[in-house]
Amino acid sequence: MEKNINTIGVLGGSGALGSGLSYRLGKEGYHVLIGSRNQDKASKKVNEINQRINREMVSIESNYLAAEKSDLIILAVPFSNHGAIVKEIAPVVQNKIVLDTTVPLVPPKVARVQLPEYGSVAKKTQELLGNEVRVVSAFQNVAAIHLNGDDALSGEVLVFGNNKDAREIIIGLIEQIGMKGWHAGSIDNSVVAESMTSVLIFMNKFYNMEGAGINIVDSSINH
Amino acid sequence: MEKNINTIGVLGGSGALGSGLSYRLGKEGYHVLIGSRNQDKASKKVNEINQRINREMVSIESNYLAAEKSDLIILAVPFSNHGAIVKEIAPVVQNKIVLDTTVPLVPPKVARVQLPEYGSVAKKTQELLGNEVRVVSAFQNVAAIHLNGDDALSGEVLVFGNNKDAREIIIGLIEQIGMKGWHAGSIDNSVVAESMTSVLIFMNKFYNMEGAGINIVDSSINH
Repeated sequence: MEKNINTIGVLGGSGALGSGLSYRLGKEGYHVLIGSRNQDKASKKVNEINQRINREMVSIESNYLAAEKSDLIILAVPFSNHGAIVKEIAPVVQNKIVLDTTVPLVPPKVARVQLPEYGSVAKKTQELLGNEVRVVSAFQNVAAIHLNGDDALSGEVLVFGNNKDAREIIIGLIEQIGMKGWHAGSIDNSVVAESMTSVLIFMNKFYNMEGAGINIVDSSINH
Repeated sequence: MEKNINTIGVLGGSGALGSGLSYRLGKEGYHVLIGSRNQDKASKKVNEINQRINREMVSIESNYLAAEKSDLIILAVPFSNHGAIVKEIAPVVQNKIVLDTTVPLVPPKVARVQLPEYGSVAKKTQELLGNEVRVVSAFQNVAAIHLNGDDALSGEVLVFGNNKDAREIIIGLIEQIGMKGWHAGSIDNSVVAESMTSVLIFMNKFYNMEGAGINIVDSSINH
């Protein structure tokens, strides 16, 4: 199924990261179902995106129906809603790929890593959904503001997941929307990207940067 | 005191990272005391380094005496010895800067993040040593093999610590030995670099790289 991904559900699609991804994916010709609890906000975003890309590629659903109708489901919901939404969609995402972008920020100290007791959120998602769902984790370190633009992005994307083929599919999508993705290991490793976001927030403030990100380099090569 | 760092104790200085740091620091004119439990191995490293830099800058001590006699103490010991050594040196490092480079790898699955229950090792070091010690964390993501060479290194170093001045001093040292260091926030954030090492080990194997590292980029700028 995933070799022909046509419809992508973006849960939390009216948020900053979710709407940026929806825009970039819609522009590439995917049908995007924005799942949202805030229909007014979502409706505004949907109109905005469809106008920008000049095609009706994006529409609204409830989170549940967006998950049910999609080939690939992207979680872009706030950390505080994450567990409830994962449990809600569990029955309708079996045998699909679920891409988790959740960052466990705990306001107000968002520049300080404060991981939940259980560690990685994406690993928790894998546990909650069970082994028939191929959970992949990515996009935690991408500045949402740039996804909403049209430029290629210099920040690279670490891609985690226990299934290599599923990681490869997500890396393909990442390249389609103008970024570089890297195989970065099993879902256990996702905690790196989930915690890195607070470091990047700290650096944005400390160094007055707009959207710090990371690149992977091979230090045996001098640049 | 730390504005005039003359003597640097490198505990675990006969290991790969420790000896690389000892070499680079000795070359810059610091007196380096290699602390080691393996006097034979350490003795061989010391002779090697002094010959390479053509000066007697490096010598051997016990871990305890190296810590006592040094202005700055670098922890480059294996994770399994970390707690015991931190407790041993606690009385003689008060009011000094302790630079922790420890990565909590759990063999044999070193390409998989397996954080200890308490989370960050460097944060644990800060707790064990108390607030009069300025614990800084860095170097977890640097490929040791390249430190033993003479080239400038493309991998950048994230520097964590609750004391900004202590971070700044370590960033100065990092620049002296040919790398770029970044203020990356409080010691809570160290868990990012501590877990990143397993991701880089995974990538080295997956992509057949020699020593993957990270760079920080501002994604608002296209490269």
